[in-house]
Amino acid sequence: MNTARVLIVMGSDSDVPVMEEAAKILRQFGVPFEMRISSAHRCPDRTAQLSAEAEGRGIKVIIAGAGVAAHLAGVMAAGTILPVIGVPIAGGAINGVDALYSTVQMPGGIPVATVAIGKAGAKNAGILAVQMLALSDAALAQQLQEYKESMAREVEEKDQALQEKLAEQ
Amino acid sequence: MNTARVLIVMGSDSDVPVMEEAAKILRQFGVPFEMRISSAHRCPDRTAQLSAEAEGRGIKVIIAGAGVAAHLAGVMAAGTILPVIGVPIAGGAINGVDALYSTVQMPGGIPVATVAIGKAGAKNAGILAVQMLALSDAALAQQLQEYKESMAREVEEKDQALQEKLAEQ
Amino acid sequence: MNTARVLIVMGSDSDVPVMEEAAKILRQFGVPFEMRISSAHRCPDRTAQLSAEAEGRGIKVIIAGAGVAAHLAGVMAAGTILPVIGVPIAGGAINGVDALYSTVQMPGGIPVATVAIGKAGAKNAGILAVQMLALSDAALAQQLQEYKESMAREVEEKDQALQEKLAEQ
Amino acid sequence: MNTARVLIVMGSDSDVPVMEEAAKILRQFGVPFEMRISSAHRCPDRTAQLSAEAEGRGIKVIIAGAGVAAHLAGVMAAGTILPVIGVPIAGGAINGVDALYSTVQMPGGIPVATVAIGKAGAKNAGILAVQMLALSDAALAQQLQEYKESMAREVEEKDQALQEKLAEQ
Amino acid sequence: MNTARVLIVMGSDSDVPVMEEAAKILRQFGVPFEMRISSAHRCPDRTAQLSAEAEGRGIKVIIAGAGVAAHLAGVMAAGTILPVIGVPIAGGAINGVDALYSTVQMPGGIPVATVAIGKAGAKNAGILAVQMLALSDAALAQQLQEYKESMAREVEEKDQALQEKLAEQ
Amino acid sequence: MNTARVLIVMGSDSDVPVMEEAAKILRQFGVPFEMRISSAHRCPDRTAQLSAEAEGRGIKVIIAGAGVAAHLAGVMAAGTILPVIGVPIAGGAINGVDALYSTVQMPGGIPVATVAIGKAGAKNAGILAVQMLALSDAALAQQLQEYKESMAREVEEKDQALQEKLAEQ
Amino acid sequence: MNTARVLIVMGSDSDVPVMEEAAKILRQFGVPFEMRISSAHRCPDRTAQLSAEAEGRGIKVIIAGAGVAAHLAGVMAAGTILPVIGVPIAGGAINGVDALYSTVQMPGGIPVATVAIGKAGAKNAGILAVQMLALSDAALAQQLQEYKESMAREVEEKDQALQEKLAEQ
Amino acid sequence: MNTARVLIVMGSDSDVPVMEEAAKILRQFGVPFEMRISSAHRCPDRTAQLSAEAEGRGIKVIIAGAGVAAHLAGVMAAGTILPVIGVPIAGGAINGVDALYSTVQMPGGIPVATVAIGKAGAKNAGILAVQMLALSDAALAQQLQEYKESMAREVEEKDQALQEKLAEQ
Repeated sequence: MNTARVLIVMGSDSDVPVMEEAAKILRQFGVPFEMRISSAHRCPDRTAQLSAEAEGRGIKVIIAGAGVAAHLAGVMAAGTILPVIGVPIAGGAINGVDALYSTVQMPGGIPVATVAIGKAGAKNAGILAVQMLALSDAALAQQLQEYKESMAREVEEKDQALQEKLAEQ
Repeated sequence: MNTARVLIVMGSDSDVPVMEEAAKILRQFGVPFEMRISSAHRCPDRTAQLSAEAEGRGIKVIIAGAGVAAHLAGVMAAGTILPVIGVPIAGGAINGVDALYSTVQMPGGIPVATVAIGKAGAKNAGILAVQMLALSDAALAQQLQEYKESMAREVEEKDQALQEKLAEQ
Repeated sequence: MNTARVLIVMGSDSDVPVMEEAAKILRQFGVPFEMRISSAHRCPDRTAQLSAEAEGRGIKVIIAGAGVAAHLAGVMAAGTILPVIGVPIAGGAINGVDALYSTVQMPGGIPVATVAIGKAGAKNAGILAVQMLALSDAALAQQLQEYKESMAREVEEKDQALQEKLAEQ
Repeated sequence: MNTARVLIVMGSDSDVPVMEEAAKILRQFGVPFEMRISSAHRCPDRTAQLSAEAEGRGIKVIIAGAGVAAHLAGVMAAGTILPVIGVPIAGGAINGVDALYSTVQMPGGIPVATVAIGKAGAKNAGILAVQMLALSDAALAQQLQEYKESMAREVEEKDQALQEKLAEQ
Repeated sequence: MNTARVLIVMGSDSDVPVMEEAAKILRQFGVPFEMRISSAHRCPDRTAQLSAEAEGRGIKVIIAGAGVAAHLAGVMAAGTILPVIGVPIAGGAINGVDALYSTVQMPGGIPVATVAIGKAGAKNAGILAVQMLALSDAALAQQLQEYKESMAREVEEKDQALQEKLAEQ
Repeated sequence: MNTARVLIVMGSDSDVPVMEEAAKILRQFGVPFEMRISSAHRCPDRTAQLSAEAEGRGIKVIIAGAGVAAHLAGVMAAGTILPVIGVPIAGGAINGVDALYSTVQMPGGIPVATVAIGKAGAKNAGILAVQMLALSDAALAQQLQEYKESMAREVEEKDQALQEKLAEQ
Repeated sequence: MNTARVLIVMGSDSDVPVMEEAAKILRQFGVPFEMRISSAHRCPDRTAQLSAEAEGRGIKVIIAGAGVAAHLAGVMAAGTILPVIGVPIAGGAINGVDALYSTVQMPGGIPVATVAIGKAGAKNAGILAVQMLALSDAALAQQLQEYKESMAREVEEKDQALQEKLAEQ
Repeated sequence: MNTARVLIVMGSDSDVPVMEEAAKILRQFGVPFEMRISSAHRCPDRTAQLSAEAEGRGIKVIIAGAGVAAHLAGVMAAGTILPVIGVPIAGGAINGVDALYSTVQMPGGIPVATVAIGKAGAKNAGILAVQMLALSDAALAQQLQEYKESMAREVEEKDQALQEKLAEQ
């Protein structure tokens, strides 16, 4: 059995559908990961412990997703030297701009690598984690290169499909 | 010597000039208080301890001031059942709206009593703390009543001064 | 029959579904409360009277919810020395940021303890009111402690459920 | 001595330099006015009285200027059937957008005629008051017509000055 | 047949459902009005003419509603000395904040009396127009007074209904 | 003497220092232009005439700069089929976001080609006008190509200077 | 067969329904165009090539539509001296304000002619492209003049329809 | 001589004072780096090349800082599989919120690890780069641990200094 190299953590089970986008990428790249629910506010001790013990358990990168005041990524970053990726989650009246500001505007000394609000951000959090791991893993780097090429091909195919559709008109 | 009933905490010594407005009010009302620097991100264990031990040390109300991602009030609130008042502090490119969102948009279960951004908010945090203490302290309630009346008188005096100035023109 | 210790006031009957979240918390903690509709703009005299008489009637904390220009909490705070908690309610084109600014940006001298926009905020307003009352009520303090622990347990259970679901995949 | 037809009210003496722009316009058009300091929050009874008595004292239009949570115009409008013009005043971290939202987003039933933030708004509040009075005052209407023409001429003169400057280059 | 005293103008027929709120108020107060579609951008000459001729045709107040860049109220105000009330209409990606800024931030010299975004604003535009006409129409002033009292009664009735509902629980 | 091919128009002489950036580019490319002050609100007839007559006088592109409610570009675009470039100018409490929204959010049918807020935008308005003229002017196209290359070289030189400075450290 | 004079490019096939509004206008005016999918981020080389080769292939104007970080218009503008029109597309949590800022706030030297967010903007991009082409194409200029007149007539017809509907009431 | 492991790139020499904060951190941790000026818009080919060749030259992490439309980090990320950290730089009328949105709101597939606006963000970009390198460099990890501890100590010292200052009063 593989040891988790990435820890995906979120504040509530309602965040699972968003954070699942990060999990999908990690599965696609064959990177073992853990997915945990822990709240910066409702169970602060457990969250602090999750952060403090991550490195010792072999975790290399933490991905934290949270909405509204969104302190989770910052609190995780406070307790570890591992890189922490923050995913702001939309929801509530301000719809994610609050979560974005709370995640990205970290004071000097404690970075959170923030990605876009919502599912696109969660997907990119997965890719960013793979990019970090690929710095010392040539096979992952090769996979990333192929992923990048497949994205370019996909755009070409969509363009081709559009040309065919326009030609038919 | 009096035991502190209010704990004023802020993330950095650069926040002292703002949070001093809360301290001034507490001095004016004769409420003993502590003023501490502790950071949610740079010293999370110490901050958690400050929150966890507050009630036991006789603290009744916590006032927490922070800027940018401003997790301090939320982190303090996570660790105690005492009411926590949050003062968003302006600074950086977003100038306090980030701190406001990070402080006020707390998830259900962990309230932060948020006041206005900056010095007016810090002053009001002091008054709000006194209002809470006055719920079981008739002398403080009396002082608050007098403070309220003096504010009304002050407006009347300013209006009177304006009328005199206009009459001179 | 218990005398109300908390007054929940809102500007319109359309706000009841939001403010009911505060009422639920007060019922859960066994805190007697009143729930009233009164508008800062449509019946200013009645609103002023509600504020002025609250303390004399035994009210300890006021919770005021309003949307758009949201003057209700500020107007209630103007007429009393009791702590006033403001709940900004989403609605209209600006969807609650207007209500947040109108509620939280009070001038120095007249605090409003502002919570998050909408239902999460109303729930937290209830908890914050209980926290204030618990300062001189050990039984309520004990209940708050248990509530806090149950929130932590609930997160653990959700995490456990997620682990089981992931293990099944 | 003339009876005031316009009441200019503001929350603080620090607002005088802004609201003076409205006064200048009223002086220029020969409209007698009163200028008062009264706060919606610090002296609510006095403010309510100012509003309630305005019509009886011969006031036709109220201009209210306030910053941050800016409840003054709304509170004045709650107490009278006279038209109330609101001037949002910049200041504090949010710099007037808070005052704009608090002034303009009035609920159905109680309008506030809101003008631009700051000095341009205060000037326009004066002109708007004159426009209202001119509905039943042909001499004022004539003055407004001349004022409008002089604004057009002034732009032409500035354009002429620019052409001369450009020709010199 | 009555001559129109208020001109309601809007940029598109899609704005009719919003601006109808102003019309309802005018009908309720018995104020004759015109309702016109004219665009500042698609038929500028016609719009300019509508503004220029309004006073001569007996119009006393203009209400202009528009969305997005929302130049209509400003363009109407440029061509007349009559008071112009602007109703920002929500729509498009920015949902009315663009229309609010375009309507309210008029430069010194040309006021637009701006009300809230959308239907509440349109309703208030109607009331504000009545308030202006009532300055020289005692019967309208009397109607406004009764309207104000009926609004207060309505809140009382809603409060009474809530008390009954709570008592039943 | 050359006939103006570009008309630069602005609402006030205070906008000249910003719009001068467009003029500099036109001078640099040898494109004759006119620079005029005309206000959408203070002299609407003159502005309408300026727009309506532009094409007949040989103007090919209009550049309009304005701040706050910023209706000028839209009003110019309403009166002509020439392309109109809008420059939002910062100023006032909202500092140009109001001008940006008022300029760019034009309804379908009447485009305004909007550039960045302030001096960078005015400069780009000049370049954009040249790009439009270059569509049928090979010499201008050649100049644009050289301008583009000189920008690239300038970045290289700045990079070279930085490398030298870093090497010295 | 006609050679394309306008290149419409978008980042994803999900943008086709928005950008189709530009295509409709070009078809209506008989302007031959190409419609392509190419991404600034997923296939940067192909996008750079599309931009670099456009002028040589006879393209006169480029219209680029993109959402969220919306770099496409800027990247196209970097590679050509042709005028580039940017259409910000709504989508994601920030709903197009992100795309607007990313498209319009170009640094000095590289303009993007930005239009409104979404379908109205795409339609206007088409018209703006026609306006640019019409600078050296009298037949297109004539068509634009007729289009402008038909828009004015359409407003008149809508107004007429409203008058009839109101008369029936 | 050490080979650079981090590439710091910025769009203009005016960004050097901000990005220098990243450089300071890298010097402090003994991580060799390159600092380059290259613009996504003014020299797109050079920027594309810088990105494409980075991995081959031994670069492990790219830090890109840019203001306003801020496409640089996204353009760098498009051309490499290395992790790219984006630093939004304040400047212009929107003061960095434009740069933040342009940097963080990347579409799915191409992540940019975004940090706070301005100097605090640049400093954190440096730390984040070290955190990534430390995943396979135990000495760096040890340094990070010490850095984290020194930050905590620094807060304690500031708190101690405040206590001494308060004791003196």
